[in-house]
Amino acid sequence: MRFFSDNAAAACPAVMQALADANRQTTAYDGDEWSKRLDGAFSDLFETPVRALWVATGTAANGLALAAMCPPWGAVVCHNDSHIQNDECGAPEFYTHGAKLLLGAGEGAKLTPDTIAAVLGTARGDVHGVPPAALSITNATEYGRVYTPDEVAAIGELCRARKLAFHMDGARFTNALVHAGCSPADMTWRAGVDALSFGFVKNGGLSAEALIFFRPGLADATLYRRKRAGHLLSKGRYLAAQMLAMLDGDVWLANARAANDGATRIAAAAGDRLLHAVEANEIFIRVSPDEAAALRAQGFDFYDWGPGEARLVISWDQDPRDIVSLAYAIAAL
Amino acid sequence: MRFFSDNAAAACPAVMQALADANRQTTAYDGDEWSKRLDGAFSDLFETPVRALWVATGTAANGLALAAMCPPWGAVVCHNDSHIQNDECGAPEFYTHGAKLLLGAGEGAKLTPDTIAAVLGTARGDVHGVPPAALSITNATEYGRVYTPDEVAAIGELCRARKLAFHMDGARFTNALVHAGCSPADMTWRAGVDALSFGFVKNGGLSAEALIFFRPGLADATLYRRKRAGHLLSKGRYLAAQMLAMLDGDVWLANARAANDGATRIAAAAGDRLLHAVEANEIFIRVSPDEAAALRAQGFDFYDWGPGEARLVISWDQDPRDIVSLAYAIAAL
Amino acid sequence: MRFFSDNAAAACPAVMQALADANRQTTAYDGDEWSKRLDGAFSDLFETPVRALWVATGTAANGLALAAMCPPWGAVVCHNDSHIQNDECGAPEFYTHGAKLLLGAGEGAKLTPDTIAAVLGTARGDVHGVPPAALSITNATEYGRVYTPDEVAAIGELCRARKLAFHMDGARFTNALVHAGCSPADMTWRAGVDALSFGFVKNGGLSAEALIFFRPGLADATLYRRKRAGHLLSKGRYLAAQMLAMLDGDVWLANARAANDGATRIAAAAGDRLLHAVEANEIFIRVSPDEAAALRAQGFDFYDWGPGEARLVISWDQDPRDIVSLAYAIAAL
Amino acid sequence: MRFFSDNAAAACPAVMQALADANRQTTAYDGDEWSKRLDGAFSDLFETPVRALWVATGTAANGLALAAMCPPWGAVVCHNDSHIQNDECGAPEFYTHGAKLLLGAGEGAKLTPDTIAAVLGTARGDVHGVPPAALSITNATEYGRVYTPDEVAAIGELCRARKLAFHMDGARFTNALVHAGCSPADMTWRAGVDALSFGFVKNGGLSAEALIFFRPGLADATLYRRKRAGHLLSKGRYLAAQMLAMLDGDVWLANARAANDGATRIAAAAGDRLLHAVEANEIFIRVSPDEAAALRAQGFDFYDWGPGEARLVISWDQDPRDIVSLAYAIAAL
Repeated sequence: MRFFSDNAAAACPAVMQALADANRQTTAYDGDEWSKRLDGAFSDLFETPVRALWVATGTAANGLALAAMCPPWGAVVCHNDSHIQNDECGAPEFYTHGAKLLLGAGEGAKLTPDTIAAVLGTARGDVHGVPPAALSITNATEYGRVYTPDEVAAIGELCRARKLAFHMDGARFTNALVHAGCSPADMTWRAGVDALSFGFVKNGGLSAEALIFFRPGLADATLYRRKRAGHLLSKGRYLAAQMLAMLDGDVWLANARAANDGATRIAAAAGDRLLHAVEANEIFIRVSPDEAAALRAQGFDFYDWGPGEARLVISWDQDPRDIVSLAYAIAAL
Repeated sequence: MRFFSDNAAAACPAVMQALADANRQTTAYDGDEWSKRLDGAFSDLFETPVRALWVATGTAANGLALAAMCPPWGAVVCHNDSHIQNDECGAPEFYTHGAKLLLGAGEGAKLTPDTIAAVLGTARGDVHGVPPAALSITNATEYGRVYTPDEVAAIGELCRARKLAFHMDGARFTNALVHAGCSPADMTWRAGVDALSFGFVKNGGLSAEALIFFRPGLADATLYRRKRAGHLLSKGRYLAAQMLAMLDGDVWLANARAANDGATRIAAAAGDRLLHAVEANEIFIRVSPDEAAALRAQGFDFYDWGPGEARLVISWDQDPRDIVSLAYAIAAL
Repeated sequence: MRFFSDNAAAACPAVMQALADANRQTTAYDGDEWSKRLDGAFSDLFETPVRALWVATGTAANGLALAAMCPPWGAVVCHNDSHIQNDECGAPEFYTHGAKLLLGAGEGAKLTPDTIAAVLGTARGDVHGVPPAALSITNATEYGRVYTPDEVAAIGELCRARKLAFHMDGARFTNALVHAGCSPADMTWRAGVDALSFGFVKNGGLSAEALIFFRPGLADATLYRRKRAGHLLSKGRYLAAQMLAMLDGDVWLANARAANDGATRIAAAAGDRLLHAVEANEIFIRVSPDEAAALRAQGFDFYDWGPGEARLVISWDQDPRDIVSLAYAIAAL
Repeated sequence: MRFFSDNAAAACPAVMQALADANRQTTAYDGDEWSKRLDGAFSDLFETPVRALWVATGTAANGLALAAMCPPWGAVVCHNDSHIQNDECGAPEFYTHGAKLLLGAGEGAKLTPDTIAAVLGTARGDVHGVPPAALSITNATEYGRVYTPDEVAAIGELCRARKLAFHMDGARFTNALVHAGCSPADMTWRAGVDALSFGFVKNGGLSAEALIFFRPGLADATLYRRKRAGHLLSKGRYLAAQMLAMLDGDVWLANARAANDGATRIAAAAGDRLLHAVEANEIFIRVSPDEAAALRAQGFDFYDWGPGEARLVISWDQDPRDIVSLAYAIAAL
C-alpha cells in the first residue's frame, strides 16, 4: 500500500481513452485539433481569455512561466520550502538564465504579505542587487496547505503595488480548488495571478500539464522558449487530449475530490499527530521511528520527512480499503 | 493522404499496449521497473555497456547530448542543413549555454571528412575563437540520405584525431540502420560515436526518445541537466515502456522497414525527378507548381521544400494503397 | 617596427593626463562627475539625446548591445567575417544567453541589403527557427572598409522594414568617420542605428569604450547586465575621464586621422597588391612567403592573414619614419 | 571627509607610475611582458605554483572563479551577507549559467563549519536538488571581520571532506592578511583554498584584480570564459603592471596597514558602539539618527547601514587628520 506520492499513480480511464482516441495521423506539434481547442477550453473554464500551452512536466511549466516574467538579472520571490527552490534542480535558474530566488518564510510553506514584505525589504534598489520581478506561490503548498482566494488576492494586491508578476505553481491546483470551493477564476486571475502551472499529472494525467497565461501577451515568447527547451512534442495532441478529457465531465474535480477526501479521512485518524492542517491530499504526521516501523510492518509505504516526521500522499485512485486500513493503523499507534 | 511527416503518425499497437501495461502505481521518475531496464536493454542491443536515458523529444535528446560534450565556450561542428541548426529554435545554444554551431557543407546534408576539415581549418586555436569540442551528424540525414558505417567511421577517426566528441542525431536512426543493413554497434560506437539521440517517435512511438551514451561517464551530469530542463517526467515509466515494447520482437525494425520500403516504391516511380538518393523514408522531388497542384488535387498532401521542390515522408503505418496511388500519380506527371 | 595591431599602441597623452586628473577620491562606480557627464557629452556629439555607458572592452560593449536587442531565442544577422562571430569567443552568445548569429556575405566584410536579404530568406518564420531580431555591422569593417552613411542608411531602412534592431560595432568608428567625412549623427542614428559600440582603445585610449544607445530605453536593463557581467568598475571615473579627454579638442579625430593617413601612404605604395580598398587604418596585401620574409628581415612585424596575405595596421602614434620606411619597402618588393 | 568606501579612493603613486611605464607599444591582450610575469610573481608570493589572471573587477574575478568550480546545475555555499549574494546583481548566476547560492549564517558575515554543515544538511543528494559543488568565503568579510588561517583551514578541511571547491573572495585580502599576520600561503592554499579573488582596487589599485588559481588546471577554461565575458582587455599590460608595482616593495602591505591602522584608531574611539570587532578597514557602529546627523554636520560622510547603524571605511590614503577628527567626533557623541 503505497502512500509515497500522487506522482506515481496510474493515469485515469478518461486519459487512457483520450490517448486511444487521438491515436491517428493528424498534424504535428500543436497544429492538431486537440491542441487548438486548449485556449478555448481553458478560457471557458477561467471565464476570461487565456492562452494555454501544454508541456510534459510541472517543472517545465514553472520554468517557462518564470522565464516569461523575470529577466535574467531579476529575482523571483518564493517560499523557502517551495518546489521551485528545492526540487527542480535549478530549473528556474536554467529557464530564466540565472535569475535569483529570494526566499521567504511562512507556516505550511505559505507566504504571507508580511513575509513577502520582509523579503522585499532586503532588496537594494540599485544595480548591485537583483530587482524582484516576480513572485511565485504554490497552491496547494508543498505541505498540503491551501491559500484561500482572499489570501491569494492579498498577495496579488501586493504584487500589483510592487510591480511583481504573479505566478502560481498549481501542481495540485485542483486539490486546492475543491478544498476552497471557489471558481478557478477566483483562485487565480481575479486574485491577481498572471500565470498558472496547472497540474494534471498528479491528478490522474499521464504526462500533461497546462501552462496558463492570464496575460495572454506573455505567451508569445514562451512558444519559442518551449520549443528551444525541447518541450514542443511533435505528437503534442496526446497531451492536449489528456487535459480535454479530464476537463470534460469534471473528471479533474472528481479525481481531486477523491484524493482530498482520503486525506481528510486519514487526518481525522491522525488527530494531534498532524504537523500541518490537511487541506489537500497530503498528510504530514509526527511518528516515532518505532511507530513508523510499525506502520511499514503492516505494509504501508511512505516517506520519512524529517526526524520523527512522515509524509503520506493520497492519490486520485487510492484504494478506499487501503485508506481505511491506514486510518485505523495510525489511530491505533 | 498525408505525406507531410512521420512526426504526425499514430503510435503503433505495441506502444499503446505498453502504455496500458504500465498503467499502474509504481515508483515515480525513473525509479520504476521499466526505466531500470533501459540500460540493460540498450547495452544488449549495442553489444557494449551504455547508459540510456529517456526524454520526450529529439530536441531534448540532442540538446542534452551536446551539453554533455561541449562547454559553453566551445563549438559544435554540424551540417549547414542540420536539424540542430535550423529546426530546434536554438536548443543546442540553450542547453550548452551558448556554444556556437560551426556549419559545414556536403551533398544531401551529409558531412564528409573534407568538409569537416574545412570547417576546422577556420578555427583560430586561441582564446579569441571558440574551440571545436564536438561534432554532430544526422543519420539518416535531413534529406533522407544514410551514412554507411564506413562513412561514420571515417568521421569518427577524424573526431578522435581532433579530440572532438561525436554525436549522432538519430531521429531516423532505425531507418538508416535498416537501409545500411548493419548492426547498431557498427553504426555507432564501433565507428567512434560517443552519444546517440535514438528516435522512436517518428518510428511509431508516442513520446519517447532514448539518449544513449557510449561513454557512460557522460551520463552523470546529464541526469541533473535532464531534471533541470524539466525532462525528468514523474511518470517516466510510460516512456521506458514504449521503447522496450518497440525493441521487443523487433517492432522498431519492422516499422522502419515498412516506411523505407514505401519510400523506395515512390522513388522508383519518381525516377529522375529525385533530388536526393532515397535511402530512408523521405523523398525529395522536382515538381513544377502545376504538377504540385495536380498531386494535391488528387488528394496528396506534402510540403513544398523550395521553389519547384517537394518533400514527401512515408510513415511506418502509411496505407500501402496510398503509397501505390502516389507512385502512380508521380509517374503520371 | 610593429604593424600588428592598433590594439597594442600606447595611450595618448590626453588620456594619461585625464587619468592623473581623475586620481582623487570621489564617488564609486558611475556616480562620479566624469561618468555623469557622459550622456551629455555624447548627446552633444550625436546631436540627439543618447545614453552612454562606459565599459572596458569592445567585446563587452558588443555583447551588452546585442543582449539589449535580441532575446535568447532570437538571431543576430552579421557578416561571416565579423569580429562578433570570429574573435570574441562567443561573447554574443554568452551575453544574449544563446542567441544565434546568422552569417551573411559581402566583399571586404561589408554586408549589403542583398546579402542581408539572402540571410533573412532562410529564416523559417515559425517557432522551429530562431527569429532574426537584430543586425550588426562593423564600421570600419574587419577588412578596413568603410560603410558610407548612405550604405548604412540603406541597411537601416531594411532593418526598420524587417523590425530588426540595428547595431554598429565601431571598434574603429572614428577611422570610419574621418574617412567618410560625415557627422557622427549621419553615420549612426540618422541612418537607423540603434546602438553603437564606440571604440576608444584602438584610437589612443587605455581601457575605455562607450556603449551608445540612440534608443535610450535600451539602456535601463543594460545597467543591470553591465553590473552582472562584472563591467561596472568601482573606479569607473577613469574610463569616463579618458573618453571625455579624447572628445575634448578633437583628440579622437586627430588620432584617427593620423592612423588613416599612414595607411593611405602605405596603400599608395602597395598598388595592386591591395586585397581591399584602404579606407581606414588597416592594409591587407598580397605577399609571397619570400616577400613577407624580406619585409620581416627589414624589421617590419605584422600578421600573416592567409596564404600569401598579410595584414598591416597603423596606430594613432605610429612613427612617421616607420611608415615611410614600410611604404618604400613594400614598393620595392 | 568621505568614509564611504575604499572603492572610491585614488590610485596610489606606484600604480600611476606603473601605468606611465607601461605606456608604450607592445603586444596586445596578455602577451606583453608584464602579463607574462604574473604567474611567476604570484607563485613566488604564495610559495607554490599558481596561475594568475588579471581582470578589471572583483565581480568578474568572483564570477570566473565560481564558474571554474561549480557546474550550472550545482550550488555554491556562501554567507547570507556575502557580496556574491547581495552586491553583484547575480554575477555568480550569470557566470556559472544558473548555479544556485545556498546561504549560511554566522556572526560578522563569517561562515563556520557548523553553519556550513547546516546548509549542506539541507541538500537532497539526488537529481531533484542542486548538488553543492563549491564554497565561498570573503576575507576580510563584508563586516570587516577576518578569518584566521586556522579558521580557514577548518573550512578547508570540511570542503575536502565534502568534495567542495573552495573559493576566497579577497576584495580586502591584504587587509585580512596584515591583521592575521600570516603568510599569503597560510591564509590560502595551505588552508585548502583553491581559488582567490585577490583585490587590488580597494587597496590603491586603479582597475586591476588578480584571479589566483592554486589548482592551476582550473585556469585553462577560465581563459576562454574571461575572453567571452569581455574581460580580456587588449591593453591588459596596464592591469598587470599595476599589480606588479604594488607587490614590488610591499606597497600592497603598506597600503592595507595604513587603512587597518586608521580603522583601529576609530574603533578605539567607538568603544561599545561597535557592532562588529574591527579587524580590517571597516567600522560598523551604533548611532542614533541624531548622532549620525551630528557627524554629518561636522563634515563626515558615510553610509547608513540599517536603522541606527552606520558603516565607515578607511581607505589606504585616508588623511590621518581626518581619521583623528572622526575618532574625536565619535568619542564625543
